[in-house]
Amino acid sequence: MIQQLSITAPDQGLHEITPQVDAAIRETGITNGLCTIFLQHTSASLLIQENADHAVRRDLENWMNRLVRVDDPLYTHVNEGPDDMPSHIKSMLTANSIAIPVIKGRLALGTWQGIFLWEHRHGVKHRNLVIHITI
Amino acid sequence: MIQQLSITAPDQGLHEITPQVDAAIRETGITNGLCTIFLQHTSASLLIQENADHAVRRDLENWMNRLVRVDDPLYTHVNEGPDDMPSHIKSMLTANSIAIPVIKGRLALGTWQGIFLWEHRHGVKHRNLVIHITI
Amino acid sequence: MIQQLSITAPDQGLHEITPQVDAAIRETGITNGLCTIFLQHTSASLLIQENADHAVRRDLENWMNRLVRVDDPLYTHVNEGPDDMPSHIKSMLTANSIAIPVIKGRLALGTWQGIFLWEHRHGVKHRNLVIHITI
Repeated sequence: MIQQLSITAPDQGLHEITPQVDAAIRETGITNGLCTIFLQHTSASLLIQENADHAVRRDLENWMNRLVRVDDPLYTHVNEGPDDMPSHIKSMLTANSIAIPVIKGRLALGTWQGIFLWEHRHGVKHRNLVIHITI
Repeated sequence: MIQQLSITAPDQGLHEITPQVDAAIRETGITNGLCTIFLQHTSASLLIQENADHAVRRDLENWMNRLVRVDDPLYTHVNEGPDDMPSHIKSMLTANSIAIPVIKGRLALGTWQGIFLWEHRHGVKHRNLVIHITI
Repeated sequence: MIQQLSITAPDQGLHEITPQVDAAIRETGITNGLCTIFLQHTSASLLIQENADHAVRRDLENWMNRLVRVDDPLYTHVNEGPDDMPSHIKSMLTANSIAIPVIKGRLALGTWQGIFLWEHRHGVKHRNLVIHITI
């Protein structure tokens, strides 16, 4: 069971996609199984993080932006814009695919967990995700 | 096939859980397949690392504690204690779920690999894991 | 469906293995499903990254080598050579297993995505990978 999703984050940052993944699960009618989400891009990430206090996602974003500088003289891959190479590095340090069990028809997320598309670039139109669901 | 585990690490640090995952595999009687472990928390991680020399896990912990400071003035999410936001960052930089093939009824780990619950906080009572096993 | 691969990277760095994984998929004759690749080592990583401009992989490597120093006085696990502990840290910060959906008999990679074995050590002979494929 495979579904494809196209998501547009408003800008650089953590953009919650739990409702869209939840809807994909319900559509399959699966009871127990495993949901794997795969991102078809190398300058964004998938992340499971706290979805309660918005300060958490802002702090994650700011910490990462301090570690991975836009203006780093180390970069030689610079022809796709100043935010491109930092985005590849952020992608390298985080997840490209995530797997979440499904129990009784629901994603088995912890109480405070949400699924996020982490957009690392500015002004990107859309990101393609593939969702695989198995029993 | 889904199992749920509750694990308590003694304190912040890498806590090996290979025996518990092994036991879950044997209980299913599966021969060949895939075991996916999912952690229902955002201030701890799952990690596969060397389980031979204990100095490795201490060095990993110390390196990470130097990179992700407890007393970083960047943090605005501070109401859950000084070790909470660093724990979210460590979780972001490491894995929330891991997948390990099963061959002939055994986890197909390399010779020196062990599975660890990496507790990032102090004084946490228990952590819930969901194990999904498929052929 | 489980296959085992042995890969030798020429030296430290990102070594593309997309053709080998593609071949494993075709051999199974699967149409739609999920391919999970697991690395049986703790001083190398698996990574999905841009496979177009080689400058990207060089920048990733150089950035990581600057973050994770070879000559760090923090290390106590030093008996396996100066590049061993840095390799464990790089492995901790990146992926040990990756999952990629299969659609119509092909890996559902994005246009610019390739699969890489990231060798963190010098002079390693070979690395063992386990590939699990399910519908």
